[in-house]
Amino acid sequence: MRVRNKPWAKDYVADHPERLVEEPEPLKGNWQSRFPKEQPLYVEIGTGKGQFIVEMAKAHPDRNFIGIEIQFSVIAAALKKVVASELTNIQLVHTDGEAVNTFFAAGEVAGLYLNFSDPWPKSRHAKRRLTSPVFLAHYADVLQPKGEIQFKTDNRGLFEYSLGSLNNFGLVFDGVWLDLHAATDGVEDIQTEYEQKFSAKGPIYQVIAHFPTA
Amino acid sequence: MRVRNKPWAKDYVADHPERLVEEPEPLKGNWQSRFPKEQPLYVEIGTGKGQFIVEMAKAHPDRNFIGIEIQFSVIAAALKKVVASELTNIQLVHTDGEAVNTFFAAGEVAGLYLNFSDPWPKSRHAKRRLTSPVFLAHYADVLQPKGEIQFKTDNRGLFEYSLGSLNNFGLVFDGVWLDLHAATDGVEDIQTEYEQKFSAKGPIYQVIAHFPTA
Repeated sequence: MRVRNKPWAKDYVADHPERLVEEPEPLKGNWQSRFPKEQPLYVEIGTGKGQFIVEMAKAHPDRNFIGIEIQFSVIAAALKKVVASELTNIQLVHTDGEAVNTFFAAGEVAGLYLNFSDPWPKSRHAKRRLTSPVFLAHYADVLQPKGEIQFKTDNRGLFEYSLGSLNNFGLVFDGVWLDLHAATDGVEDIQTEYEQKFSAKGPIYQVIAHFPTA
Repeated sequence: MRVRNKPWAKDYVADHPERLVEEPEPLKGNWQSRFPKEQPLYVEIGTGKGQFIVEMAKAHPDRNFIGIEIQFSVIAAALKKVVASELTNIQLVHTDGEAVNTFFAAGEVAGLYLNFSDPWPKSRHAKRRLTSPVFLAHYADVLQPKGEIQFKTDNRGLFEYSLGSLNNFGLVFDGVWLDLHAATDGVEDIQTEYEQKFSAKGPIYQVIAHFPTA
């Protein structure tokens, strides 16, 4: 995502430590302390400008949400949305979502959302895709038994790769959608900014899956 | 498939017992006897007018092929193609492909092709789909270890269902294609009559998968 420099962002983030975490490691195993109510924890990796996580938090007051985003000016925009929403069941984390197991404890997460992540189209970059086995192993570390991964993309090559990768890793599919916006099965469809902007160009793909329980 | 009555079909089939089997059960475990060479056996369930199986047999002289088709006038048309091809590595079977385990022995089949099978779109008919668990259990019975299922369709709903069904059954994906005719990975793409006629309307989906070995 191309991002313009935002001079207001630094001060705005500094003014909202109750909403945005810059050092997540010390909270490992203790994320519920950041929320007024202890509720199942759902995490979006790559939360962008926050539309998805804010809408999800509105739709599911019985869950706590964490949005992770590495780009500073982008998460500052998400922070504005979160503050404006007045919802208390969202926290933002300004960090790299690559090593979630360094700041979530085993079983701490009930569900993971991966929305429109970088496709890394070249084969030699496959291991950087958020659905590569390296990342799946991290997700397995932090998800509770039956905890779900919901993965959504408009990139055909990434989705083809991801179906294979999730399957080969042993994940169990709960559902596959090859044109999510045309779905008639009542699946929840809360959209990201990117999704609203670009979905006219082609179908949105989605898979929901969970790790097998031993 | 709508089929016109073909008065020539009955005589033509009767004239070619060396090519077309009408009673498959007695051949169980002994299909190699129908071919000049003993070679890995590949089976297409629902072979239609035979274009796919004839092209495959031409491209793979080191394999034996069996095309199964229930509709008499349709398999008669396939028989014409097979006879005209002069290929000796194809046999046709006029029967219902539903219970392949009644006429193939355990491990007798190296690969199964399911091309553009009936989508049975209503939920209450899901078990009639050729990728439903009932059929997958039959395929598991007859496929050799690492034997593959190659499933191809233009029906989005059927493909969504099939990815879930194969995954939930424990099959391991070797590859997924969400627009086969646009694939650039060099995957073999021998087309059926139906596929050539209708693929302009939308993408062709394909998955190749194998049963896990114990």
